Parts: sequence; structure tokens; C-alpha cells
Amino acid sequence: MLAGAAARLGIDLHVQTPSREDPAVALASSVVVAPLDDVQATRRLAERSGTISFENEWVPLDALLPLREEGIRFLPDLDALRPLVSKREQRQLLDRLHLPGPRWCPLEAVLPPPPSPPAGEEETPTPTAAGAPSPPPALRPAAPALPEGFSFPVMAKAAFGGYDGRGTLPLRRQEDLEALLERVDPAAWILEERVDFERELALVACRDRQGRVACFPLVETHQHHQVCDWVLFPAAVDHAARAFARNVAASLLTALDYVGVLSIEFFHGRAGLQVNELAPRTHNSGHLTIEACPCSQFEQQVRIVTGLPLGSTDPVLPGALMVNLLGRDHGEEDPAERLRALAALPGAHLHWYGKRGSSPGRKLGHLTLRLDAVTPADRAAERDRRLAEVRRIWPLPADSPG
Amino acid sequence: MLAGAAARLGIDLHVQTPSREDPAVALASSVVVAPLDDVQATRRLAERSGTISFENEWVPLDALLPLREEGIRFLPDLDALRPLVSKREQRQLLDRLHLPGPRWCPLEAVLPPPPSPPAGEEETPTPTAAGAPSPPPALRPAAPALPEGFSFPVMAKAAFGGYDGRGTLPLRRQEDLEALLERVDPAAWILEERVDFERELALVACRDRQGRVACFPLVETHQHHQVCDWVLFPAAVDHAARAFARNVAASLLTALDYVGVLSIEFFHGRAGLQVNELAPRTHNSGHLTIEACPCSQFEQQVRIVTGLPLGSTDPVLPGALMVNLLGRDHGEEDPAERLRALAALPGAHLHWYGKRGSSPGRKLGHLTLRLDAVTPADRAAERDRRLAEVRRIWPLPADSPG
Repeated sequence: MLAGAAARLGIDLHVQTPSREDPAVALASSVVVAPLDDVQATRRLAERSGTISFENEWVPLDALLPLREEGIRFLPDLDALRPLVSKREQRQLLDRLHLPGPRWCPLEAVLPPPPSPPAGEEETPTPTAAGAPSPPPALRPAAPALPEGFSFPVMAKAAFGGYDGRGTLPLRRQEDLEALLERVDPAAWILEERVDFERELALVACRDRQGRVACFPLVETHQHHQVCDWVLFPAAVDHAARAFARNVAASLLTALDYVGVLSIEFFHGRAGLQVNELAPRTHNSGHLTIEACPCSQFEQQVRIVTGLPLGSTDPVLPGALMVNLLGRDHGEEDPAERLRALAALPGAHLHWYGKRGSSPGRKLGHLTLRLDAVTPADRAAERDRRLAEVRRIWPLPADSPG
Repeated sequence: MLAGAAARLGIDLHVQTPSREDPAVALASSVVVAPLDDVQATRRLAERSGTISFENEWVPLDALLPLREEGIRFLPDLDALRPLVSKREQRQLLDRLHLPGPRWCPLEAVLPPPPSPPAGEEETPTPTAAGAPSPPPALRPAAPALPEGFSFPVMAKAAFGGYDGRGTLPLRRQEDLEALLERVDPAAWILEERVDFERELALVACRDRQGRVACFPLVETHQHHQVCDWVLFPAAVDHAARAFARNVAASLLTALDYVGVLSIEFFHGRAGLQVNELAPRTHNSGHLTIEACPCSQFEQQVRIVTGLPLGSTDPVLPGALMVNLLGRDHGEEDPAERLRALAALPGAHLHWYGKRGSSPGRKLGHLTLRLDAVTPADRAAERDRRLAEVRRIWPLPADSPG
């Protein structure tokens, strides 16, 4: 969708992708076929391209620094990306800016302190003939323990590489915590308190090279097994929540000197708004901007990276519902008939990505439906009715492991 | 744009095109590289495709008839296309349906009747030694003459193959008529009175397989050297003219049992609405439906051909101006900077087609601008202001031969 926006604006697009079957390939002026962390390939890309941007946050920042030293321009800048590519650094950034988020700690914080031998007992106990002795109680490794202020259940999150619930694990009890510690590097994970939210919200915000900030409308998102199921615009929250979300976005964008599109996911509940996650890119929660706004999140990213003024983010529809079309089974039947039925729904805009292959939970396309209800209650009813229409045609995938 | 709409709906598109550089190639599931009148190639296309449709009216109808006999489905049907692919048959169709159009006649009607020798003078004159004699006045071929009711200037139009003014010729005086007769087959041309119109209008209409008719908003079009320069929505005409245009469309679509998108160009003036031309396809005057309507003319054509219900044609913008970006010189400079300036105009949606090469008058892209004025007078002023902004960046090509 990003590549399509660039093509339509007549902008030369050069793509680095590991696969020739990437849908962006058909729209690109040239392609460097290479893994995304192949920095020599990125150097070749830079020879063709004035500016390099990213479609996901799995960016080999340190390896790219020498390229920036050579004068290659990255937008957003690598420094702006650094606090965003790791969930741990995201939390540190939010703390530094005093922006609200769930209580968190590095996973390392659950480790018991290294045993400091009691004063005056420097000698090790002598093994007996019966074998190694049990260490005395004071030297036995203490069990890991949640820091003060935390209680089970807690969420464990990998600092790098997670998406759609991958790298996120609910810990319900002490044994879950110990099992996690046996298989991961505690420095690469964090723990978060489990937030008791009423709804999840998301905001796609953007900032241009001159520092101007704009926000797309705040939306409500709904997950199924930690994968986005549907997105509703407008979100059923009051003006104060909308204003607060925009302020959080402006603070983050400005503090990072961030140039480009940034997505912010929020929890919303009794504790107000709390930042859940940040993503330095266009986002699934912004797909409905294609129909709901004069300039989509994709065109906006292209405009910013190429130095064009921001497009308008004012909605042109009274409401919209975006429903993800997730893959169900490996090797499932030709979806043509189901796509026809979806496209035939009134007010429906189908976006099929034409990806090859399918697997359960994989995002294969999405459907945006115009909503006309005026009040939040009517809109929720309209959403439920339209969502049921879609799910009769395209059910959610069977329960997949979380 | 048609191929893009099909891809987005997840519809398998197979393309017959003479050029691998056709922008549709990148979006097609498969391509048959062959001239459009290569019927054997169309047969190969039909092996892959359930339905065949057309992007222009240069269709070898008679050669395709055997394919239809074999069960290959064409939409619109070849019978519905027959009266539309020739300007002469278009005029006959309009007459048959009593739909208003300029006075017209076949070019053959200007030819003098074959000399019928005066009664009793059956012998041929004998050549003299001085050479062939001048025939007597009664036998000299009479000069061609406009039929009764016509007067110069008149418009001569080729029945087949014209577009953007090609195949259209104003005849200002008797000598122009005689010069035309010396170089063309009179059976393949028609003459039309020159209409003294105030504005040109266009309507993109559509009819689905169940016979339901829908019309996109009536627009005003403006030509420069017979090539479309800009298109304005809504047209500054009264309700009666709008209703009349829709009625003309419904009559034509129904009489032809036409399935697909049909475009109608009108003259509008003291004589009311008169049909100028018909085109059995999506049309330049409908490009602004991409932004101005929930479902564009391109998606509409794809929906109809694949049996989906019609999308909405109700406008979602208060007004819009579409400006064509025409090529100027052979081998002109890289347009990147001018495209940037166009995309930077407020409320502008740029569509660059990415065609290779440029020549004067070739349509290389278009720009659609949102208009907010409410009254026709304000809208005309807004149009002039916005058009001037565009033309400062992207001037019209220098005067090309008409």
C-alpha cells in the first residue's frame, strides 16, 4: 500500500526485500533482493535512492550507523528509531517523558540478588563422603520473585522482534515465570502489569521535516488472540481522551525529532489512557484512513519522506469499520467466492493483498465498511451488525496458540 | 487504474496488450502480449479468463463473433458494442431512440448523384484529334455539396478509430470538403453540424448484469485542442438538465442491453442537451470519481464485469476539479520536481501513470483537487483559481496541430 502511494505520486521507489514475491516489487522502479538486515544491500539501495525509510521496526540500527556517517539519509532518523525498536527502550522513553503506561520492569529485576556470603563465613563447606552437601539455607539460590508492586498475572514481552502477540506471554503464576527464565535471556525481556482496560485505542500520528505534527482520528481496536481483528472510527471516548492522545503523540514525535508516521496503541479504562506500544511506521489500525481521510497513512508517509507537505487528516466519512481478513488453514480453498461476497456487502471497500500462500492468523487483506450511525450506542450496534455480516462470510481463524 | 481496482478486489486479471510496458502488466496474473486485434491471442486469453471486457472501443467485433459462438462471454456483449464502436452507428442509434444530437449525415450524402444521361443522348461523344473533349456541361461531374439544412462550418468525423480530436476535422469552406473527399473513403466518415454550445458535459453511467442502472455525477468538461483539459464536478446546470442526462443514459443502456460502464459526452446550450459522443468504457471525465465517490468508475467496471453489485455513485465531496497532465515535448526533462509541486498543492490528489516516454498532448497523469465552494459562481471562481495554480506548475502543451 505504501508502494502504491509512491507510484501514484510519481515517486521513484527502490525496494530492499528478501522476496521477489513481495507485492511492492511490481510497483518499484528497482529492487534489491536481500534480507532486511543485509547492510551491504542497503548501501546498494542508497546508491539509487535519496532517502531510506522503513516499513517495519526490525532495523539493524548499529549496522546502519556507518551508512549515515557516509551521508545517507534515513527518515525517521536512526536516532529517532533507537528508543522505538525495543520495548524496553520504549518504556524508558515513556518514563523519561512522564507519559502514562503500565507499571513495568526489566525481567532481570525478578532475579534474586547474587548470594552475598554472610560475614565471617568465607570457607566453603567440605564435601562429605555421601556426596555434595545441600548448601546451607542462606546460600541456596533464592527463587525469582516479582518486584514490589507487581502481582500475577503479569505480561512478559520480548524487547525485540515481537508482533501480533508473538513475543508476548501472560505469566499467571510463579511457575510460568520460572519456566520463562529457563529459556530466555532476562536482559531481552520486560514484565508489565496486566492492565484492566475497557477498550484499546490507537492513534496514527505524523510529523513532517519542518516539525509540523498531524494526527489521524483516534480509533478503537479489537484483538483476537493478540492479532488485530477490527478497528472502529470514531472511538467511543470523550473529547478529553482524544486531546490527551494527541498530546501524547505530539510529545513523543517532538521529543524524538521523529520525521514520518508513528503509531501509538493505548489502553483506555478507569486509569485513563496508558500507552501500550509504539510502532515507528504505518499501522494496521490506520488502514481505514484510505477511505476515511483525504490522505491515507500510506500517502502521508510517502509525502513526509519525500518532503511534501502533510496531507489532510480530517475525516471525510461519519464512521468506518475495518475488519482484517486473516488466513485460516494452510492450503485452504480458493478464496474468490468469499471475496466476492465481501465485496458485495453494502458500503464495503475490499483490499486484498494478493500475498502468496496463507497460514492461520496471517493478514491476507482487509475490508473497510462505511458506518452512518451518529451516537456511540448506535455505532456500536451498527458495528456489531456489520461485523457479523463479515464474519458469516469470513470467520475468524480457529483458536491458535496465543 | 482498472487493473488496480481488480487487484484490490482480489480478482484474477489476465491482460492482452501489445506492450510489456503497459502499466496493467505489473498488476495482472498473466499477460498475453499481442496486438488488440489479434483474435487468436484473445482466444488464449479466454482460456484463462471467465469474462472478457475492453478498455477501449477499438474492438474487432466481427472477428470476435466466432469466439462468442464458442461460449466465451464478453461484457459488454459484442452486440451492445456494435452501435458504439462507429460514430456513424452511434448517430443512427441516437436517431432510432429519438435522443437529441447534432444534425448529421454520412459524408457520402455530399456526393453529387451519378450523372443520369439526358434522355435520347445515349451515344458517347467521339474523341477528336485534339484529345479528350470536355464533356458537355450536363455531363461534367457536379461539385460535392452540403445537404439541405447544413452550412459551413461543419465537423467531419471518422466513423472509426478517432480519439482526442484525431479523426475529427472542422470544414470551414467548400475547398476543405473537397480536399477531404480526395483523401478519405466517404463511407467511413460522417458530417455533423457545428453546435454552438455554452459548455460540454459528460456523464459516466453503468448498468449491471441484472439491469440496474446507476449514474455518476454529471460533470463539466473543457477541451484544449480537442483534448480534455479539465473536468469539474458538479456541473453548473439545473436539475432538469441533470435528470435529462440520466434519462438519456438509462435509455441507451437499456436499449442496448449494455452491461458495464458507458460514457456519454454532451453539448449544452440554447438547444438544451445534445449527445456529442458515446464511449463504451471508463472515461477521462470520470477520473475524479476516484476521490469524489465511494466507488470509482474503475472499480464499478470491475464489479459489473465480475457480477458484483454496483457500488455507490453518490458523491462524498462537495466539489472536485480534475486536471489532465499532458506531455509537452519529446524527451522533456525529468518531471519529478513539477510532480512534487503539484502534490504539494492543498487538497490535491496526484495520479501519475508512470508511462514510459512522452509526446505533446499525451496524457501522463492527472490531478484531482477538492473544491469547497457552494454556489456555481463561487465554484467557477474557485476552479479558475485552482486551475491557474496547476497551470503555473504544469502548463498546457504548446499549440499542436488540431
